[in-house]
Amino acid sequence: MKYRLVTPGPSMVPSETLLSLAKPVIHHRTAENKAVMAEALSLLKQVFCTKNDVAIFTSSGTGAMETAVATFIRPGDKAIVISAGKWGERWVELCKTFGANLIELKATYGEVVTPEQVAAALKQHPDTVAVYTQLSETSTGVGHDIAAIGEVVKKTSALLAVDGISGVGAMECRTDAWGIDLLAVGSQKALMMPPGLAFLSVSEKAKKVMESKPAPPMYYFDLKKYLAKAAENDTPYTPAHTLIAAQVESLRMMINQGMENVWHQARQMSKAMLAAVEALGLEPFAKRPCEGLTTIVVPPGVDGNAWPKLLEQKYGVKVAGGQGSMKGKIIRVAHMGYVDPLDVIGIIAAMEWSLAELGHPVESGAAVAAATRVFAEDYVKTPAAV
Amino acid sequence: MKYRLVTPGPSMVPSETLLSLAKPVIHHRTAENKAVMAEALSLLKQVFCTKNDVAIFTSSGTGAMETAVATFIRPGDKAIVISAGKWGERWVELCKTFGANLIELKATYGEVVTPEQVAAALKQHPDTVAVYTQLSETSTGVGHDIAAIGEVVKKTSALLAVDGISGVGAMECRTDAWGIDLLAVGSQKALMMPPGLAFLSVSEKAKKVMESKPAPPMYYFDLKKYLAKAAENDTPYTPAHTLIAAQVESLRMMINQGMENVWHQARQMSKAMLAAVEALGLEPFAKRPCEGLTTIVVPPGVDGNAWPKLLEQKYGVKVAGGQGSMKGKIIRVAHMGYVDPLDVIGIIAAMEWSLAELGHPVESGAAVAAATRVFAEDYVKTPAAV
Repeated sequence: MKYRLVTPGPSMVPSETLLSLAKPVIHHRTAENKAVMAEALSLLKQVFCTKNDVAIFTSSGTGAMETAVATFIRPGDKAIVISAGKWGERWVELCKTFGANLIELKATYGEVVTPEQVAAALKQHPDTVAVYTQLSETSTGVGHDIAAIGEVVKKTSALLAVDGISGVGAMECRTDAWGIDLLAVGSQKALMMPPGLAFLSVSEKAKKVMESKPAPPMYYFDLKKYLAKAAENDTPYTPAHTLIAAQVESLRMMINQGMENVWHQARQMSKAMLAAVEALGLEPFAKRPCEGLTTIVVPPGVDGNAWPKLLEQKYGVKVAGGQGSMKGKIIRVAHMGYVDPLDVIGIIAAMEWSLAELGHPVESGAAVAAATRVFAEDYVKTPAAV
Repeated sequence: MKYRLVTPGPSMVPSETLLSLAKPVIHHRTAENKAVMAEALSLLKQVFCTKNDVAIFTSSGTGAMETAVATFIRPGDKAIVISAGKWGERWVELCKTFGANLIELKATYGEVVTPEQVAAALKQHPDTVAVYTQLSETSTGVGHDIAAIGEVVKKTSALLAVDGISGVGAMECRTDAWGIDLLAVGSQKALMMPPGLAFLSVSEKAKKVMESKPAPPMYYFDLKKYLAKAAENDTPYTPAHTLIAAQVESLRMMINQGMENVWHQARQMSKAMLAAVEALGLEPFAKRPCEGLTTIVVPPGVDGNAWPKLLEQKYGVKVAGGQGSMKGKIIRVAHMGYVDPLDVIGIIAAMEWSLAELGHPVESGAAVAAATRVFAEDYVKTPAAV
């Protein structure tokens, strides 16, 4: 049975990238590896739409998040956290760990925090050091309006730190234009790679704040060292350089496709999934859906644990269930990484078949047809030269 | 862009099999390699549903076909060729090459030769040495009724030689039960492998004919040598043994799935494709379709060369066009090898989108819905234990 990994990370990875991992290991302190680092950094900046410096960590995305907190927050510093799910809660935990004076803007699961709420909080707390949020909150499937939040934050002295770990590459993210000071990204989501690498882009505004602070009580995630070494296409500690070389392969594919096209396809896949959800008589869980993931409320009468299990065991489609209090109540179907519209159509067919088997009334073919029409309308507008 | 290879060979290959090809090369005259050969031969017999001996050639499928002619036909020997397309014509060419007294039963492209026609020819030519035919004739997409033809031939002294190169694994083929004396199969079609290997199973009846003949005027394809060596899990000449080891991986997957299930899925994919063809307002070209391939008549107004080109360039779906006189008139969409119902649904969506762009009136979503329903009806009958 074919296996289709459509969880919100890890995601599917192209063979070209995986095969790169099978190449002989070279030494990491060599001109050869510096060339790879140089290309990785250049490509990451293009994908992130930034001229800012980028640090590459050998860690999970949480490492980049921790760096974005620990470098800038000293005990008593005010930090606003926009929390709309499990990953917002991770920012809360990190801020608490480093002694922040925490202002939490909390959205009910499935909803988002609005730019207006952020503006109000910043007005009330003009001495806020940083605002922490998510581009896409994969626990609930919402996406924040980072462009608008950026407009608000850039008028203040506060830094805007965005967890784009699962979002970057699966939805539009213009780091510089939107005023994102700190952008954390992971390799294993929309960047078409296995786990192991995390990235953090750092604005000049953030660097100034960093310089104004005493060194943070940490060693491995010492951002200054990473940025200094990155300027020489190097890293302070032994990097997972075979992963970096493989990441270059996937980043090249994205840049060759063009970021506008990457975002457009992600948007279309999201629209198609939402059309399918509607055709199935289901409800999306997210009020403002992100574009790399569709969260679906498990309908009454369907066992919310059996559904993902059936999708995996009978159709090889590995989706994610709900986490924590949402376990059994939602399923999360990702369309990030190496996934295309043909995959999405096939996955929707498997959703139809599995739901029908679990007793949900399904008008067979309606969901795949609805999704097919979403793409059809768009493809007609972009005729190919054949 | 994801690439989906859905031509009637080569077909898509699982990663597990491809990765096997990256293993270090061992020597081919070793106990280790004999163990691989033994497993390959055992699995091939299970897939072919035969207790007969099997020869493994390092060649294209044509090598096995040539062996099936050259070993048994001497100048002037009567050979009946059932010819329903390009591959039937290959049997004709081979029979002519080896001086056969040729009786050609020719079907119009898109049609088949019936068991009745074979019976009549054998009655008229009781001294026929062998009857040559195809399980699936991929140039037109028809499948012959080998079970019924086998019933006819097994009552005579003639041998039944079946080109199952593209058919075996993509449709039911019971070598022993159906009385197939010589079954030629290729690695790169439904056996989920790259090209390079051909197989020939040889019945006791065929062996007796072989023994009664003087040695054929050939060296590399000397069947006696292959069978003698196969009895020792060996080959007469250097085999592409890394391909054989990889073939074992794919064969294991088929046996683990179970041949009944493999055939069933192939049948369902064929039914789904035909339902899609009908929903698109198109005509299948084959009057008696084989199950690993759907041939579709290009509708009036659509450029029969542009259609496959668009499918490949815009959607990454590599189908085959028509060959020879059928160029531009049909397209051939294979569903053999490492392909599953989710792939089929996605490919049908791409067929919809591309046809619409080429000006064919498409009711968007109708074809994917029709195909989804075909699978749905079947999946309901086979509930999974979750």
